[in-house]
Amino acid sequence: MKAIQDHYAAQFAHCFGCGPANPHGHQLKSYLVGEQVIARFTPEAKYSGGYPGNVYGGLIASLLDCHGTAAAAAFALRSLGLEMKDGLTGIRFVTASLKIDFKRPTPIGVELTIVATLRSLDHRKAEVALTLGAGSEVWVSGEMLAIKLDAKHL
Amino acid sequence: MKAIQDHYAAQFAHCFGCGPANPHGHQLKSYLVGEQVIARFTPEAKYSGGYPGNVYGGLIASLLDCHGTAAAAAFALRSLGLEMKDGLTGIRFVTASLKIDFKRPTPIGVELTIVATLRSLDHRKAEVALTLGAGSEVWVSGEMLAIKLDAKHL
Repeated sequence: MKAIQDHYAAQFAHCFGCGPANPHGHQLKSYLVGEQVIARFTPEAKYSGGYPGNVYGGLIASLLDCHGTAAAAAFALRSLGLEMKDGLTGIRFVTASLKIDFKRPTPIGVELTIVATLRSLDHRKAEVALTLGAGSEVWVSGEMLAIKLDAKHL
Repeated sequence: MKAIQDHYAAQFAHCFGCGPANPHGHQLKSYLVGEQVIARFTPEAKYSGGYPGNVYGGLIASLLDCHGTAAAAAFALRSLGLEMKDGLTGIRFVTASLKIDFKRPTPIGVELTIVATLRSLDHRKAEVALTLGAGSEVWVSGEMLAIKLDAKHL
């Protein structure tokens, strides 16, 4: 199964966080699974926070940001009655606002699960709820407002 | 003048975003200047967003996150009647929540200015307002709630 990011149009595929065309970046891969969008990511040790052993906040924010905009694109595609295999031509969301609540430290060396759920979707705006954790534990939660790019940017 | 991050105790200096002891990271440097805390940072081209030429949201979040906690530490030190040259022994804030509003795309290749202003401070909690931009332009704004680590973590 191809990830949502692997469907991005070439000009949008350079993101350090999730672009398949950025060889230096995290290359996050997000998948539409039922009613949710899910990604898994295991941070390298260098991405420590102030303490060694915990993930620094910036990486967590990066993962939530890229995952949330990918999820918004997938939810918007689905709302058109299309499936991921039909591609994302003309659909790319960017972040208008992102709120992150760091509930617990996130340990390094653990495979993280990032989950996005759609809260609302109108023509151009998607509200997405986000969680990050492992197993049944949620260490970080987030709320995103994502905006679909105008056709003039495509 | 030493940056706030250069005063962090050794065990807190490993942050990818701002730790002087993390050779792989961004090594953000924040300075208390009058009533504000200011940092300057020029992102490398690889930190592009979906479009080449703009900064990806994750880096912006990283800069605001590290800058905000540094600012909280500096403001807390000042509230004790101490100065940066007296050091930050026993003072380290972590992020409880961070809200980011992306108002405009942030171009790559420009020296960014990140500014923190104290909104409120009690014993353990600091509310910090953040902006990121260049010159007189503000492209991103943020609000942080930072929490001072308990002595048991020091």
